[in-house]
Amino acid sequence: MFTDKKIIHLGYSGAGYDPSPAVMDAIMESLSKINSYPYEGYDELEGLIAEYCNVGRKNVMVTNGGDEAIGIITALYGSRVLIPAPTYGEYAYLARSRGAEIRFSNSMHGDTYEVSFSDEELGWASLVWICNPNNPTGTIVPRATITRVLENTKATVVVDEAYYEFSGTSVADLVGSHDNLIILRTFSKGFGIAGLRLGYILASSEVINRIRNAKQEFNVSRVARAAGIAAMKSRSYYSERVEEAKRVRDDFERHCNSIGITAFKSNAGFVFVKFRDMGEMEYVHSTLMSNGLVTFGPSDSEFSGLSGPYVRIALGSKNDMERAKSEISKAVADYWAEKGRSPENKMQLQEPPEAEG
Amino acid sequence: MFTDKKIIHLGYSGAGYDPSPAVMDAIMESLSKINSYPYEGYDELEGLIAEYCNVGRKNVMVTNGGDEAIGIITALYGSRVLIPAPTYGEYAYLARSRGAEIRFSNSMHGDTYEVSFSDEELGWASLVWICNPNNPTGTIVPRATITRVLENTKATVVVDEAYYEFSGTSVADLVGSHDNLIILRTFSKGFGIAGLRLGYILASSEVINRIRNAKQEFNVSRVARAAGIAAMKSRSYYSERVEEAKRVRDDFERHCNSIGITAFKSNAGFVFVKFRDMGEMEYVHSTLMSNGLVTFGPSDSEFSGLSGPYVRIALGSKNDMERAKSEISKAVADYWAEKGRSPENKMQLQEPPEAEG
Repeated sequence: MFTDKKIIHLGYSGAGYDPSPAVMDAIMESLSKINSYPYEGYDELEGLIAEYCNVGRKNVMVTNGGDEAIGIITALYGSRVLIPAPTYGEYAYLARSRGAEIRFSNSMHGDTYEVSFSDEELGWASLVWICNPNNPTGTIVPRATITRVLENTKATVVVDEAYYEFSGTSVADLVGSHDNLIILRTFSKGFGIAGLRLGYILASSEVINRIRNAKQEFNVSRVARAAGIAAMKSRSYYSERVEEAKRVRDDFERHCNSIGITAFKSNAGFVFVKFRDMGEMEYVHSTLMSNGLVTFGPSDSEFSGLSGPYVRIALGSKNDMERAKSEISKAVADYWAEKGRSPENKMQLQEPPEAEG
Repeated sequence: MFTDKKIIHLGYSGAGYDPSPAVMDAIMESLSKINSYPYEGYDELEGLIAEYCNVGRKNVMVTNGGDEAIGIITALYGSRVLIPAPTYGEYAYLARSRGAEIRFSNSMHGDTYEVSFSDEELGWASLVWICNPNNPTGTIVPRATITRVLENTKATVVVDEAYYEFSGTSVADLVGSHDNLIILRTFSKGFGIAGLRLGYILASSEVINRIRNAKQEFNVSRVARAAGIAAMKSRSYYSERVEEAKRVRDDFERHCNSIGITAFKSNAGFVFVKFRDMGEMEYVHSTLMSNGLVTFGPSDSEFSGLSGPYVRIALGSKNDMERAKSEISKAVADYWAEKGRSPENKMQLQEPPEAEG
């Protein structure tokens, strides 16, 4: 069913831009010792990350992508796992595989994503997940919500800040004062090396030591280590790329809203769109797929607790997003033409819901 | 204390040769999409591995180095872990970090390494490790020993065949008939890409599914995946490299035996040497280290249950091993000269123990 057109993956959210030239040089150089374990260890990389995050050297541990941390944290802390919904699916997926008890806390109130665990839920849990900005809604969980959770539970609380470079929002400064806090970060989004698998966690030195003991010695490859070190030294390059990507994202949101489908205001590297109804969503989602443009809808297993006429579109390059804009416009128009009504009429018939601010 | 001489790492055992040109080309090509998750999955690579191992496609799962599998298997099966000693240290290390009960079964009888678990031990265990060829002794665990273990326990039995390309010995053919068998393999040794982190397990489809559910979706990087695929298609290149490495290894063993220290007959990518006494071992080990030649002795945490005047020397290039030969000869001679006796005299005074066959 695919057309001749180039396939564009706007499903899994990596980056719509290339790594810095310094990162590519470092990768090339790392290949000269590719037959050896990365026996020099991760001190240099973890030191640079500590500086970047303004935490102590002992508060950092690198991982094989952020998702490795989800597995290890779940194995160590996750007997009773509390998860807001909708959110990133890997938290529940890995908890389920370990036989953990899982409770979802519905956090979608109309079109507002708001994490509001009850005292009973916080008393029950051994592990609490908060994704900030949330995936797939792209919305911010306010700092006050996170501190309230931290101070009202004995559970380990993980704040997944995968999209920190896009949101600029972090609770990394609370690592020193909250022993039950773990922050997850990644080089897959803002730093654009999802294909290499590199992430890290920030936590108290006690928690870091416990997690470090539960991981294999060489979990991060030579190539990822070299790329991570170079990325930490190319920060102005990446700041510029992220700012450009945010402009493309905001333009894409405006386009969606202009054709009567609702884009949530994103603080991340994707756009979360609500269609007028399930029929429109399903038609557009599958039409894009047939035309080689891959996005994630509610039927994809990527998210926990997502239902409704939603699609998540990861940011590609500017050109990719121009093509996405025109494909979506055309699919929306075709859908309503087949229905015998124009989308303009439909828009007048039904007030689109307010985007969350 | 290091000299000007180039530092040679013969501690961690990777490979003393470079990847095939086809592997390097594949790595370069993989870099063009390094900003994307490896969303195409691992089907092609796992299919090629299945063919290489002569098992079904559903009996293979790739891992982030063999060591990732040790962590996941320990988390899933390892409440009571039975480990022969001495052996590779990661089995005990990761079991300990998960709070497992561990029993070591002494398998060093004089200078013979022989795994002989009691019925009581096999009845007790939930997880049994066998490293074949064993690390660090380099010796083969006979097939009859492995089948006896498999048939006399309800535990999950893992056979670590990391050095399969060197030993040519495998129980992969038993995967179809033994649901409690898991085989661990790696691309770090014979295929020489330890720096990229790629391994795999072979097991029944039920076990594979359970382990697959407990791992993150993208545990293997784009680069490792591309290199693994190309390595599976460069098998004659690697066969030749392994044969050359074995000739260098056997020559190194002969050299050790000729200067009165005992090299065990290795079936792996390293040589295990027994010195005349602890004094000689410690002097040579630390002298090599001061001269920039890194090897592993009993005080390194790499092995469980290793004590005695032993050193493990990983295979480097032919030139590396020539330098190791001359450094060891000189250190041995210096040690006995300081003692006021020549090593020749010492050799006549004490019969060196028989190497295990």
